[in-house]
Amino acid sequence: MGAIKNARHPFYNHCDEALDRIRHAGRYRTFTPLSRQAEHFPVYEEERQDISGTRDVVVWSTNDYLGMGVVPEVQEAAIEAVRMHGAGTGGTRNIAGTSPLHNQLEAELAALHGKEAGLLFISGYVSNQASLQTILTSMPGWICFSDQLNHASMIAGIKGARGSQTVIFAHNDLADLEAKLAAAPADAPKLIAFESVYSMDGDIADIAGICALARRYGALTYLDEVHAVGLYGAEGGGVSQRDGVADEVDIIEGTLAKGFGVHGGYITASATIVDFLRSTASGFIFTTSLPPCVVGAALASVRKVRAENWRREALFERVNAFRHKLRAAGVPFTMTPSHIVPIPVGDAERCKRISRRLLNEFGHYATPINYPTVPEGTERLRLTPGPFHTDEMMDDMVRALGILLREEGVIPALEAAGQAA
Amino acid sequence: MGAIKNARHPFYNHCDEALDRIRHAGRYRTFTPLSRQAEHFPVYEEERQDISGTRDVVVWSTNDYLGMGVVPEVQEAAIEAVRMHGAGTGGTRNIAGTSPLHNQLEAELAALHGKEAGLLFISGYVSNQASLQTILTSMPGWICFSDQLNHASMIAGIKGARGSQTVIFAHNDLADLEAKLAAAPADAPKLIAFESVYSMDGDIADIAGICALARRYGALTYLDEVHAVGLYGAEGGGVSQRDGVADEVDIIEGTLAKGFGVHGGYITASATIVDFLRSTASGFIFTTSLPPCVVGAALASVRKVRAENWRREALFERVNAFRHKLRAAGVPFTMTPSHIVPIPVGDAERCKRISRRLLNEFGHYATPINYPTVPEGTERLRLTPGPFHTDEMMDDMVRALGILLREEGVIPALEAAGQAA
Repeated sequence: MGAIKNARHPFYNHCDEALDRIRHAGRYRTFTPLSRQAEHFPVYEEERQDISGTRDVVVWSTNDYLGMGVVPEVQEAAIEAVRMHGAGTGGTRNIAGTSPLHNQLEAELAALHGKEAGLLFISGYVSNQASLQTILTSMPGWICFSDQLNHASMIAGIKGARGSQTVIFAHNDLADLEAKLAAAPADAPKLIAFESVYSMDGDIADIAGICALARRYGALTYLDEVHAVGLYGAEGGGVSQRDGVADEVDIIEGTLAKGFGVHGGYITASATIVDFLRSTASGFIFTTSLPPCVVGAALASVRKVRAENWRREALFERVNAFRHKLRAAGVPFTMTPSHIVPIPVGDAERCKRISRRLLNEFGHYATPINYPTVPEGTERLRLTPGPFHTDEMMDDMVRALGILLREEGVIPALEAAGQAA
Repeated sequence: MGAIKNARHPFYNHCDEALDRIRHAGRYRTFTPLSRQAEHFPVYEEERQDISGTRDVVVWSTNDYLGMGVVPEVQEAAIEAVRMHGAGTGGTRNIAGTSPLHNQLEAELAALHGKEAGLLFISGYVSNQASLQTILTSMPGWICFSDQLNHASMIAGIKGARGSQTVIFAHNDLADLEAKLAAAPADAPKLIAFESVYSMDGDIADIAGICALARRYGALTYLDEVHAVGLYGAEGGGVSQRDGVADEVDIIEGTLAKGFGVHGGYITASATIVDFLRSTASGFIFTTSLPPCVVGAALASVRKVRAENWRREALFERVNAFRHKLRAAGVPFTMTPSHIVPIPVGDAERCKRISRRLLNEFGHYATPINYPTVPEGTERLRLTPGPFHTDEMMDDMVRALGILLREEGVIPALEAAGQAA
């Protein structure tokens, strides 16, 4: 009891100490300021103090996998929406913030996934957090079966659902999932939360297998297709579309910010589930709706992605070409069944240094992926070659990676190793 | 134990029943699709099936209080950013999603509030939720003193901070706050979370008084200025700027989606606190950064709002003019020290009906504010007249309100009451 006068609040010291610990662990994050150049994607402009100017950098870490954000029709749709409706909506969906564009985009997304209805959120993160938290607090006794490698946004929603129980199953391990489903009370409401493409490892879930278990044990299925929409399936409806199992999944969640190149997140599901979340999810209700430029651009992008297949084909052709070049040059990478090319490094400080040298000495940018995004000891560069990375860019990048991984001791030096032996 | 085969998941029934309950309580939400017309703000276009076309509607519920979202320079900044950089950033802040525009906007917001640093979030909701949850889980023993009427986004962050303790103090009641601070252990880390302008009631906190208590009891202060930034203070820095106490508040949170007319949220604070949240807040780290059009437009808007005072002056002149007209016509409203004009109705179904009739019969739109946004029994229309509502619009609106409030029995009928007596 009593008063502390004029003392510095201990939170300030806590921040200093926490930042020191992060620095000493080699995982202090520095954001590299890069301006995407719409007309030269995937070339970005970097402001550099050492030359008092800018220079071009080839970026290998964008999640705008297909380059949809720089498609002229998508840009024009954004511009048209700004001209017509202004720079923001000025309200929540309920408070004058629902335009016909919002409704059209929700209908388009529902159609993409073959669901009755769609619901926009201001991000994929919020769509996961708000939906899962709302579902898992809707009835007593929920048990959420959550893949061990689920994204932070799903974990935030699951953890936020006080009163529900969480059972984590081994990553993509259906035997473990089934054992855990079988061990749970038959009458408890159950939900299985999982992703299709896991973005950091690039592996893909057996959606049909998980849905079969869900049917057998009476579980609802919640599938995050964030790193798959736009890229997989005949219309870019994700892995669930590619595998022909979208109708077996209760709730499909996606993003407009990666394969569709714009911004925002969404879910699609039955009309009843969507209406329930629309009516009760705090993270949906109490927030300004997505601005006209975003909704207009996303609508144009989704329609284009559904109609045109060549970008998807070019993406996978380019990913294969890049892997071929890496293999030929002896640069190790993790082979994945997706479009994601992880280059293992295994040490936070070294991972950051390789990324920095790649940028400074070679003009290529690949983000170092460190804890908390991946577990400590599994640090990596994560590359996402796309339709617009040319052979020349790839050859240059592969050469640079070979030099740096050898110099930094991630792989043995070539001649030097021979001479030393 | 065991399997339920082919049964409909009970969540579907739960949704049906919950929606039925919402409908029976008269608070089923229908979003009225309205297209903001940038060139005729606050006139929106409504698509109507009964006339198979569109008609103009005057909107009284926008949170773009100053109309900044339709200022041509702000729109042009959005358009320029889309042309230069595309429709999205394609990455989190750490993964190629930080452009020089993001850094400039953060610096501009820090300057606006006289703080060392700023940090962008994808919404005001997320800035509150992520910041408060991260702070209140950073050290053991946190006690959060939370104003009873804090916004849902603050409550989400406070509730999400497992392990911390929450003490709710009576709304804007400094005696109650002091009693609760005094009763708490002196050595526990404390935080006072409050707003400046409470958006639904329109009242304003005594920031200096709360900060004095914070100093006396060693508490950190977290102030939500979402409904004040742009409108109060010499440069639109909010009530804390108007009252000359911004430097006494540890963390000032704001939005780019209301007074600044665009989209997104932010905090400003000491460099250390901002760096800590930047490095640890899940809701900041794991989400795609704000798109170029939003960041470009917001930067232009904040600069303009800081430099130009006439919209703030016009706003308050218009609010006063509107109150004068309401009073002259005998239309009851809640007098507030802010720009917000609540019209009490007190019943969800009636509130919705008045709003609908206002739209259908008179061409004016004011959102019905029902539970869960406000407590049941305090349903209201919430009006936000702005610089661009003309005398003619006001006269028409006041006449319509008078007719509807009398016909719906919110206030006694005029002649009819006399004749019946």
